[in-house]
Amino acid sequence: MRRTSRDIRTANRYRVLRQAIAESPASRPRLAAATGLSLATVATLVGELIDQGMLVDAGFEDSGGGRPRGLLAVNPRGGALIGVDVAETYVHVEVVDLALSVLGHAHEELRPGDHEPAALVRRIAGAVRAAADRAAAGPVLGAGITMPGMVDREGGVSVFAANWDWHGVPLLDLLAEQVPYRLYLDNPMRACLIAELWFGAARGRDDVLVVNLGTGVGTGIALGGTMHRGVSNSAGEWGHTLLVLDGRPCHCGRRGCVESYIGAPGIMRSLREISPDSPMLAADDQTATLARLARALDEDDPVAARTLRTTAGHLGAALADLVNLLDPEIIVLTGWVARQLGGPLLEQAREAVTRHALRRPLESTEIVLSPIQVNPVSLGAATFALEGALDAVGRAGD
Amino acid sequence: MRRTSRDIRTANRYRVLRQAIAESPASRPRLAAATGLSLATVATLVGELIDQGMLVDAGFEDSGGGRPRGLLAVNPRGGALIGVDVAETYVHVEVVDLALSVLGHAHEELRPGDHEPAALVRRIAGAVRAAADRAAAGPVLGAGITMPGMVDREGGVSVFAANWDWHGVPLLDLLAEQVPYRLYLDNPMRACLIAELWFGAARGRDDVLVVNLGTGVGTGIALGGTMHRGVSNSAGEWGHTLLVLDGRPCHCGRRGCVESYIGAPGIMRSLREISPDSPMLAADDQTATLARLARALDEDDPVAARTLRTTAGHLGAALADLVNLLDPEIIVLTGWVARQLGGPLLEQAREAVTRHALRRPLESTEIVLSPIQVNPVSLGAATFALEGALDAVGRAGD
Ligand SMILES: [Zn+2]
Ligand SMILES: [Zn+2]
Repeated sequence: MRRTSRDIRTANRYRVLRQAIAESPASRPRLAAATGLSLATVATLVGELIDQGMLVDAGFEDSGGGRPRGLLAVNPRGGALIGVDVAETYVHVEVVDLALSVLGHAHEELRPGDHEPAALVRRIAGAVRAAADRAAAGPVLGAGITMPGMVDREGGVSVFAANWDWHGVPLLDLLAEQVPYRLYLDNPMRACLIAELWFGAARGRDDVLVVNLGTGVGTGIALGGTMHRGVSNSAGEWGHTLLVLDGRPCHCGRRGCVESYIGAPGIMRSLREISPDSPMLAADDQTATLARLARALDEDDPVAARTLRTTAGHLGAALADLVNLLDPEIIVLTGWVARQLGGPLLEQAREAVTRHALRRPLESTEIVLSPIQVNPVSLGAATFALEGALDAVGRAGD
Repeated sequence: MRRTSRDIRTANRYRVLRQAIAESPASRPRLAAATGLSLATVATLVGELIDQGMLVDAGFEDSGGGRPRGLLAVNPRGGALIGVDVAETYVHVEVVDLALSVLGHAHEELRPGDHEPAALVRRIAGAVRAAADRAAAGPVLGAGITMPGMVDREGGVSVFAANWDWHGVPLLDLLAEQVPYRLYLDNPMRACLIAELWFGAARGRDDVLVVNLGTGVGTGIALGGTMHRGVSNSAGEWGHTLLVLDGRPCHCGRRGCVESYIGAPGIMRSLREISPDSPMLAADDQTATLARLARALDEDDPVAARTLRTTAGHLGAALADLVNLLDPEIIVLTGWVARQLGGPLLEQAREAVTRHALRRPLESTEIVLSPIQVNPVSLGAATFALEGALDAVGRAGD
């Protein structure tokens, strides 16, 4: 997508609010210094955000002899944002205020019958109502929803959800009949990316990859401070790039994909190859197996250690491909597998990246674990609603 | 790198001139329609380009009853651009006018002793003078130079050229003492990308990969209409992403890189594995071997056919990784190996991509051979000088 002058203004508005959320209260000169924007630009954008009720005046700071400087704070009563993480087995909803304090949440497990579109829409609407009832923070500015599979963001359509056999379900149209908020749809990978850009390790960075490690794996890509979605909104399928030509079969139909080695089922397979009868293997239960693996690592179990080394080697080799191809500023690891295996996985993966990547791009790339403590997908979904509200400010001002 | 409003204005200036070069003469409404810019924006930018001597008035066209419309043409006397392709074995210089007609060129083979920096600078300066003497088209707007290895574009420094053992040579400073033009330095991969964006298959496209197949392989990346350079200016090392973990040794120190399979030496190795005593194998001469392979393909030689199938399979698998990760609009194949193996390679690689890529991004990605007939590296280098001249217009106007 081409960028226009309006895109630049919108991106600047994001930057100012992002900084105000990170450091509240703050003066205009401080916001200008932290964002690299001119004081005049910051003053204009702050004015818009005050008019919109997102920022409020918060007294003055002493400026060491000069005129006292006005301070700005995020308005906790400026509105609530709803983030909905629709996964294959649950619907998780968080309601947050503009300072990103959690106001309420709801979690519902899905049953097999819930996967029919009309039923799922009822479950989502119910969870959103339950969460919103627990919150009370002024107007709801919007609700962001993430769906597994492929989505048409503009049209609000779930294009394809493999495990549910969904094709072209107009999800937002169906939801709009039951939920009275502005709605935004995207995928969980993008949600994790936007959460890191606004509130996590990627704040203030321009060339960012957020690598999601879970049952599936993928990466959110932001270059030049802008999310790269791809021409069919399906960029980021790093899980289906090659680790080994003609290697392990992958559910995408190809062989040797990254996901078949470092997705949770891939890690289980590696464990099974190392020790076919390991008591860590909990049949088809990925969550239980990974939890046992993490526990066994704490206890210096040699099979667990070898499984980690193998997995970290695969992960590091695949991350090195991203370093060599895209030369990013930072790679953030997120997702439940990253949380479960945490520091030891990161440390050994970094070593493997060093063996595999070219020196020059490697030297300028940082690799870290996500610092976000809440569900990053719900948080990211809520952030889609926040960006939507900010875009609306821009359109009103044109 | 973050984009600013000036970047947008510069990008729009590029777009207008690019379209005017492609379709000269053209009216302002036609330029507006073709670029998607407003008529007011186009009128302003055309005014600047006329002031600069890059565009000239070229009469009127009948507009079917209405007021006759003024036509604009590229000014062939608006200035000359010099493009210098410094390769490991030669220096190739092209001088072109703004309509991209070739005004002169020079080609010099390098001898081993020429690789010492002072000697190479003398050879480059000599070749530039020889080419410029053959041209006579008004002022020289600048000279772009590409160097193998890693370059620091901003500082004009050759950071590292492996085969010559260069480290941190301040090439542009040295050249400036002998060449009286504005100088621009970048790498050949970026030159091929910019040539395709301005004059080739990627004109008017936003998300573009230009895949360079030669002794080494790599890809130029443009997303959102903007070149992605990476945080250390070394993005695009697709040649050093994995095809086979622990596969063939690669000169970067890793094993299994794409380049070790589809770079010219990799293709020779595949041929040797298929038929160790093949008469197509010309010792260490890649150029001769690839030329014989192309000829044998024309003659339906079965060993040649099998080598092509293997190579196209490797290429297609590696291209599918780019499709899945970046979801581009178009992939353009360029470089001497692509020219040598041409249509048959493209056709079989496309089939392999179809087997390997995910359906949704694949459906929206076109894969083509470069239509550029002259040396695309020199043409791209000249285009760096053209963009530099256009950037100067922007700065003057601020
Ligand atoms: Zn796959
Ligand atoms: Zn390599």
